[in-house]
Amino acid sequence: MSKYDDIKQSAYDANMQLPKLRLVLFTFGNVSAVDRNQGVFAIKPSGVPYDELTPEKMVIVDLDANVVEGSLRPSSDTKTHAVLYKHWQTIGGIVHTHSMYATAWAQAQRDIPIYGTTHADHTTVDIPCAAPMHDDMIKGDYEHETGFQIINCFKERGLSYEDVEMVLVGNHAPFTWGKTPAKAVYNSAVLETIAQMAYLTENIKADALRLKDSLIKKHFERKHGPDSYYGQ
Amino acid sequence: MSKYDDIKQSAYDANMQLPKLRLVLFTFGNVSAVDRNQGVFAIKPSGVPYDELTPEKMVIVDLDANVVEGSLRPSSDTKTHAVLYKHWQTIGGIVHTHSMYATAWAQAQRDIPIYGTTHADHTTVDIPCAAPMHDDMIKGDYEHETGFQIINCFKERGLSYEDVEMVLVGNHAPFTWGKTPAKAVYNSAVLETIAQMAYLTENIKADALRLKDSLIKKHFERKHGPDSYYGQ
Amino acid sequence: MSKYDDIKQSAYDANMQLPKLRLVLFTFGNVSAVDRNQGVFAIKPSGVPYDELTPEKMVIVDLDANVVEGSLRPSSDTKTHAVLYKHWQTIGGIVHTHSMYATAWAQAQRDIPIYGTTHADHTTVDIPCAAPMHDDMIKGDYEHETGFQIINCFKERGLSYEDVEMVLVGNHAPFTWGKTPAKAVYNSAVLETIAQMAYLTENIKADALRLKDSLIKKHFERKHGPDSYYGQ
Amino acid sequence: MSKYDDIKQSAYDANMQLPKLRLVLFTFGNVSAVDRNQGVFAIKPSGVPYDELTPEKMVIVDLDANVVEGSLRPSSDTKTHAVLYKHWQTIGGIVHTHSMYATAWAQAQRDIPIYGTTHADHTTVDIPCAAPMHDDMIKGDYEHETGFQIINCFKERGLSYEDVEMVLVGNHAPFTWGKTPAKAVYNSAVLETIAQMAYLTENIKADALRLKDSLIKKHFERKHGPDSYYGQ
Repeated sequence: MSKYDDIKQSAYDANMQLPKLRLVLFTFGNVSAVDRNQGVFAIKPSGVPYDELTPEKMVIVDLDANVVEGSLRPSSDTKTHAVLYKHWQTIGGIVHTHSMYATAWAQAQRDIPIYGTTHADHTTVDIPCAAPMHDDMIKGDYEHETGFQIINCFKERGLSYEDVEMVLVGNHAPFTWGKTPAKAVYNSAVLETIAQMAYLTENIKADALRLKDSLIKKHFERKHGPDSYYGQ
Repeated sequence: MSKYDDIKQSAYDANMQLPKLRLVLFTFGNVSAVDRNQGVFAIKPSGVPYDELTPEKMVIVDLDANVVEGSLRPSSDTKTHAVLYKHWQTIGGIVHTHSMYATAWAQAQRDIPIYGTTHADHTTVDIPCAAPMHDDMIKGDYEHETGFQIINCFKERGLSYEDVEMVLVGNHAPFTWGKTPAKAVYNSAVLETIAQMAYLTENIKADALRLKDSLIKKHFERKHGPDSYYGQ
Repeated sequence: MSKYDDIKQSAYDANMQLPKLRLVLFTFGNVSAVDRNQGVFAIKPSGVPYDELTPEKMVIVDLDANVVEGSLRPSSDTKTHAVLYKHWQTIGGIVHTHSMYATAWAQAQRDIPIYGTTHADHTTVDIPCAAPMHDDMIKGDYEHETGFQIINCFKERGLSYEDVEMVLVGNHAPFTWGKTPAKAVYNSAVLETIAQMAYLTENIKADALRLKDSLIKKHFERKHGPDSYYGQ
Repeated sequence: MSKYDDIKQSAYDANMQLPKLRLVLFTFGNVSAVDRNQGVFAIKPSGVPYDELTPEKMVIVDLDANVVEGSLRPSSDTKTHAVLYKHWQTIGGIVHTHSMYATAWAQAQRDIPIYGTTHADHTTVDIPCAAPMHDDMIKGDYEHETGFQIINCFKERGLSYEDVEMVLVGNHAPFTWGKTPAKAVYNSAVLETIAQMAYLTENIKADALRLKDSLIKKHFERKHGPDSYYGQ
């Protein structure tokens, strides 16, 4: 028994969804779950195959990315998670994958345009693609800087991390988050679907137009905010 | 026991086919089953995952979309179903999905051209894509108006809902219907296949020609009408 | 017991491979198995879902497509099978599917160019796409004429049905055959793979060149003919 | 019992991963495992379906491709494996597949450009596509020459087989290798993923730029070499 059992279980459960949703090949992805009261998060150990994972193997680290408990090395992306948890106070879980279509958009260094209501059901803006990082950031504390690349992208564009729970890091791959690790995984799967739909849309019609504002607003507010009427 | 058990069971069975046929991610879809004698239909509850569904959880609503029985909130698309049932007298089931290829065509705001006999086996015209809705319809009673957008599209084009059992709503996604909920689900899977084949066809040959009339007529009449000779 | 039990079983086994290999949606395909001594073939009954098939349900017809045994109606494509068996003496099984990529090439009315050794492992020429049929053939005995459209395509191009065991019918879909029904099914899966590879090749490099002759010859003869050294 | 049991088992295990990872159709692939001390390798028998394989059926051949033990004929690609083992001293396993996207790039005769960190996590250069072979090599000892085509490609480009564990053979398909057969299979799956991501990237943005050097170096060194910090 550990006082971190809850977040270990929740990080484990969320990690195990990634292969089930076909969002990862081998070990190319990780999920973390934060405990705000104790100031720590549980994250997947680095390079451990999903079918060998157990809740006990989750690594506990603090918000400066120091290991607090666990005998395995944490995900090599741990510092990115730490920076996001530290600066974005209300998120409870973070996911990183190299899912196929979202990663292709990241490699193309393009925002994913909002083409339909599947997109607008989840967010009202194009999915931002943060610029590839500068060489000094890459040569510096790379994963730490990756967190800031994401945060700065949101600042510069005036986006709120509570409204937009997903980002592409240019040349790299997507990160998603949410109030819980399960929601962050849900966002990863939604992002992959949106990315594939946008890919197909442009290959059907080269000059496809972004969704108009009234439809964006309508679909988003059906599902979110005071007047929503989706779900129980 | 309820006097609506039959349509609850049939709506449940049809809903459960959607994930099996890979037509939905998470809860992005719904099926309803109508009982014309009792003037009501059974529909999926909103936002409930497919693996938590039971026949008992189906919601019974009348053709004005008022809940008649059930403790859960019905699908947020319920008013669209209600309008279609009310105006189109002979349909027994309706399906809405955000299936990948059909949705991409809807996002591209294009009819799906009839390129081959797989398409002509099911209908003799291009799959219509209704125009994106006007802002006043979107800001008004949106799902109710979505039903009229579909009905008006069929009226303007002189199409019969009995001949063409599928439509794309521009920027949104497909709706299909049929004499039974099972047939409506079948149509959803057929539409997704036709949509993918047309996508591939255009990407093989940019200037692909629509199927010629004699072949359209032949393949359709092999399967439908007085001289059909397909099936038992 | 029936004197046709062997071909019923072999047609049944081959039909059941189609959904397993993801070559069919619902009932969009059929396989037949011929018994040359008895002058009949066993074929899938029309419109019967694969999971309701049994060997007993296979329909026995003669090479003029007359039903000899069986209470169900045979596949609507039966006459095409009959013509091919009658004119092509050494084939033992025939398959018709609407598999995704092969059908897209048929809809684009294009031969599949030979771009690589996966193709050359099986045949040395482009996969022929027979022209869409003339209106009088379509309005006449359509499925009977479909068989002649295939045979005439091979005659005009000087192809041997023993060297090339697959064809696309323009605007329609593929037919494949082989010495056994199992080999015909194998060819259907190979054709679908070749079709997808050629699709991707052209979308990577618009001006891709056909495979050169020496490599075509080498790969084909590795697997076929007196000097082959593939397999046991 | 045989003194080759270890490599038979390891070749068997690795071969069985290919269908599981969806890298092969039917028998279109093979894996071998070398025993450097005994100067032999175990390889898949030619043309035997994966579900009929057993460790005992693996064929033992020496580095000149002579069969040493086993009643079945070895893979028709055996000589290519033999040449690679003979010249590249530190590899322990080799894989050949016709996986879909990697083969499409080979058919297009293009190197796979390095577009993202998924690629850089594994190697720092474009995946080389060896030129299609000259006619005299094809008409000569083809599979033997295929080995030299790969080795010469690496020589001409100044690549090390220890740094780059994968290659496309123009017009043919990929070969991968590694210190163990399991690593070689891992590389096959990684290559297929990289190939698909690059395909999608170019279809999203025609003029996509190669990944910049600093990011290539960073991601590669996160996972490899003295300063790596990925994995346990």
